[in-house]
Amino acid sequence: MRYMVRVLVKFKAGVADPQGRTILAALHSLGYEGVRDVRAGKLFELVVEGTDEDAVRSRVEEMCGRLLANPVLEDYEVSVLRALAGEGR
Amino acid sequence: MRYMVRVLVKFKAGVADPQGRTILAALHSLGYEGVRDVRAGKLFELVVEGTDEDAVRSRVEEMCGRLLANPVLEDYEVSVLRALAGEGR
Repeated sequence: MRYMVRVLVKFKAGVADPQGRTILAALHSLGYEGVRDVRAGKLFELVVEGTDEDAVRSRVEEMCGRLLANPVLEDYEVSVLRALAGEGR
Repeated sequence: MRYMVRVLVKFKAGVADPQGRTILAALHSLGYEGVRDVRAGKLFELVVEGTDEDAVRSRVEEMCGRLLANPVLEDYEVSVLRALAGEGR
């Protein structure tokens, strides 16, 4: 079965986020004064083959630790969004 | 009231995603052969002041069109995650 998996990677609390700060300043200069904070992160959407949802999730968590995220600076969140029907093998 | 808002930005279907392709190749070389596709995108988490959830969502959608995303190449998805209790004014 193939699964669509979403990974969100963001800086841990306390880690400086210069991209987020730059975007915050840009939003203020566009007149969006109501924005109080911006944190920038990464999104990955993966199509992964596996026997079941749990196996796929734990495999993608392993990928996060090895490649998709930097566990020293970043937190990650893995969600299996759905099975891709008709595309399994 | 302040709200925590999540914005996901990803390339439209059909737009080439070289970063995603590079990550896919790297995952394969690490032995994760079961990964069939990777698409890379951006995550933003904003704290936004507003009168209610709908007003905040539509304001952030406007920010996406003007700054956070490139509507020609990218799709975006705005979710108001929660009100930040005790931090309103």
